Amino acid sequence: MVISDLSAKLISVGIALSSVIDLNELLELILFKARELTNADAGTIYSVDGNHLVFLTSQNDTLEKRFGKEKVKNLFEHFSLPMNKKSVAGYVALTGKSLIIDDLYKNEEYDFCSYREWDRANGYYSKSMLVLPLKTPRNEVVGVLQLINAKQGEQIIPFKKEFLEPMRYFAAQAAVALVNAKLYQEIEEAHLDTLFRLGVAAEYRDKETASHIRRVGKMAVLLGKELGWMDETELYWAVAMHDVGKLGIPDVILQKPGPLTSEERKIMEKHTLIGGYILRNAKSSLLKQAQVVALTHHERYDGRGYPRGLKGEDIPLIGRIAAIVDVFDALSSKRVYKPPFSEREVEMILLEEKGHHFDPLLVEILLDKWNSFWEIKKIEREEQEKELFLKDVSWEEIWQEIEVKNLYFLDRSKIGN
Amino acid sequence: MVISDLSAKLISVGIALSSVIDLNELLELILFKARELTNADAGTIYSVDGNHLVFLTSQNDTLEKRFGKEKVKNLFEHFSLPMNKKSVAGYVALTGKSLIIDDLYKNEEYDFCSYREWDRANGYYSKSMLVLPLKTPRNEVVGVLQLINAKQGEQIIPFKKEFLEPMRYFAAQAAVALVNAKLYQEIEEAHLDTLFRLGVAAEYRDKETASHIRRVGKMAVLLGKELGWMDETELYWAVAMHDVGKLGIPDVILQKPGPLTSEERKIMEKHTLIGGYILRNAKSSLLKQAQVVALTHHERYDGRGYPRGLKGEDIPLIGRIAAIVDVFDALSSKRVYKPPFSEREVEMILLEEKGHHFDPLLVEILLDKWNSFWEIKKIEREEQEKELFLKDVSWEEIWQEIEVKNLYFLDRSKIGN
Repeated sequence: MVISDLSAKLISVGIALSSVIDLNELLELILFKARELTNADAGTIYSVDGNHLVFLTSQNDTLEKRFGKEKVKNLFEHFSLPMNKKSVAGYVALTGKSLIIDDLYKNEEYDFCSYREWDRANGYYSKSMLVLPLKTPRNEVVGVLQLINAKQGEQIIPFKKEFLEPMRYFAAQAAVALVNAKLYQEIEEAHLDTLFRLGVAAEYRDKETASHIRRVGKMAVLLGKELGWMDETELYWAVAMHDVGKLGIPDVILQKPGPLTSEERKIMEKHTLIGGYILRNAKSSLLKQAQVVALTHHERYDGRGYPRGLKGEDIPLIGRIAAIVDVFDALSSKRVYKPPFSEREVEMILLEEKGHHFDPLLVEILLDKWNSFWEIKKIEREEQEKELFLKDVSWEEIWQEIEVKNLYFLDRSKIGN
Repeated sequence: MVISDLSAKLISVGIALSSVIDLNELLELILFKARELTNADAGTIYSVDGNHLVFLTSQNDTLEKRFGKEKVKNLFEHFSLPMNKKSVAGYVALTGKSLIIDDLYKNEEYDFCSYREWDRANGYYSKSMLVLPLKTPRNEVVGVLQLINAKQGEQIIPFKKEFLEPMRYFAAQAAVALVNAKLYQEIEEAHLDTLFRLGVAAEYRDKETASHIRRVGKMAVLLGKELGWMDETELYWAVAMHDVGKLGIPDVILQKPGPLTSEERKIMEKHTLIGGYILRNAKSSLLKQAQVVALTHHERYDGRGYPRGLKGEDIPLIGRIAAIVDVFDALSSKRVYKPPFSEREVEMILLEEKGHHFDPLLVEILLDKWNSFWEIKKIEREEQEKELFLKDVSWEEIWQEIEVKNLYFLDRSKIGN
């Protein structure tokens, strides 16, 4: 009952693949390990998408030495193959069988035009191949792993037949890891999407648009990077949701066109606490951070903010970050009561408020990265103009938009009997 | 380069473990496969939680034959061990080393009191053991896999030393699968938690509480089960969020104490379209279903509903389900303008509206499962009374609640420099 070196290696590789959750990182690792195990010069991974094979990633030692890694990736971008038996990858995806080809140019069984063209265009010679289906335990082919040009020293040799069995195991491990990483990515996207809708719902009741929440999120990440903040996704979303408590502020105050009375302002200021309340008892660390932001994004560095009047570093850093990006975005945006301020005007206000409203360190970083911040404004301004925004849209338009998307009868396929 | 039978089995088991996402299912599979590989009568999995080992699951062929599966699970519930070298599992968790013990009662090295007590209480004899740390590729011990009583026929024998190496690989595969399943569960919970907050935010602006959205979700699942609906989580959340569009209705209408004018009613009815708009362009199938519910939960079976006046089976089934559970819950709940209706009164209204407001089939199922529906009302009424609800709470209380939970300064540990 001894595990051979090869088996031990296979098992360890399987464990390594399983522990990578990030899809892109996983694809690189799969390809790298597959090439390492078979000593292949190059390789490509395709995923099955309907009746097409979509290019996911490739590695090519020879070409990377010649052109650099980035360039080689670009050679393949948006590349897709019809899933039929004419191409090697298509054949493997359709049949679920592995293929070994000793010399592509001497083989007349498949249509290799695309390879030959590609070779000619890029000065490469694709000779030997080992092509494996990425098949799940349910026998579903989710992709194709294509290894090109086995090497012995500098010489290109055929892939050994004895690679077939271990590489089939490898491909099965890779397929499961791939499916898991995709599933994880999907649920993570769904989560962030829902957070976005919560944020949009809050801003909608105010005078802002979805692009405000995207801008402050992006700006927070810019600042956070300089401070060594680890989790950018968390920072982005926690800050983007700063005003979620506005859901609890009455319309008469939230949407009042004129200035607020001192009584009204007191109620308005409670949006920080309401946000803290909406986000209470969260288990996810993202929502916990969002609660901290909701509670502290109106605190001031000099202690004259609300709701607590916390001072300096007693204010959680993420709250200080949210405070400065929220104000920066407000100053540089058009409001019903003011035009957007110029870069010069915004700079003057930030400098005046350095150490008063804002953490001086954050003011410095923001001034240091000045152009990047204005770049976010610019991009988002363009996005905003494209955006179909609820307040300006008639119900008929909403209805049409929804009908066009054909979401109305989505459930029919879901019923079991 | 041949893969031995054992290695092939190990690799296949690794793939099988990786493809199970559900945590409980995975634990059962890990234990089952581990026992199968080593021919063990019984086994237990613990997870490391701070400085304790928490019992996760156990299997025991001998006792299950005697007492049944359920009973054996209950023997262990809430069992936890301090993580020290006194117990076998504690030793393995602390040191990260595997242990083979041939006869527990002859071994004086560890403190086995708890095992002996357990054995005596349950009429079992724990003799031989193989105990393995569940260690991630980063060398973090996340749990302990404890196998008890290797068998040869009916005889209990020591675990073979040669099991050690393959079972270490097995444990490594199991550890990664376990970490992945937990991670997946966490992000899924975070997603549902965020959906809940979005739903609560909408109800908060209305006169309802979080318990209304929980009730209609539960009731929808009850109906859905009878109709063979596949994804209960999806059904629950899609229906629970039916009123998310109320976020867009002005307070003066949403919170008006008296009856609405016909003009006001028209605006109120737009909450269906606003909900459809808030949930537009969703990628996740859950949010797509939620959009269908938002748009159709006020359609009536006889075609006299809004916003479209769709009729009969043209209304998506999930919309018909949402309509009946929403009304059922409203009828049976107290409102400012009415007391809760009695069971008899609710029944009369449902029967009157059978084929008019409601899908007749759904009315029949609801009447058929009558007691279960009222059971949901009862449970949730109790929950609701415990619930700290925003409108009845002073800001000081909210503040205190948040401070007590110590969430305010959560970010400090996150900063890298």
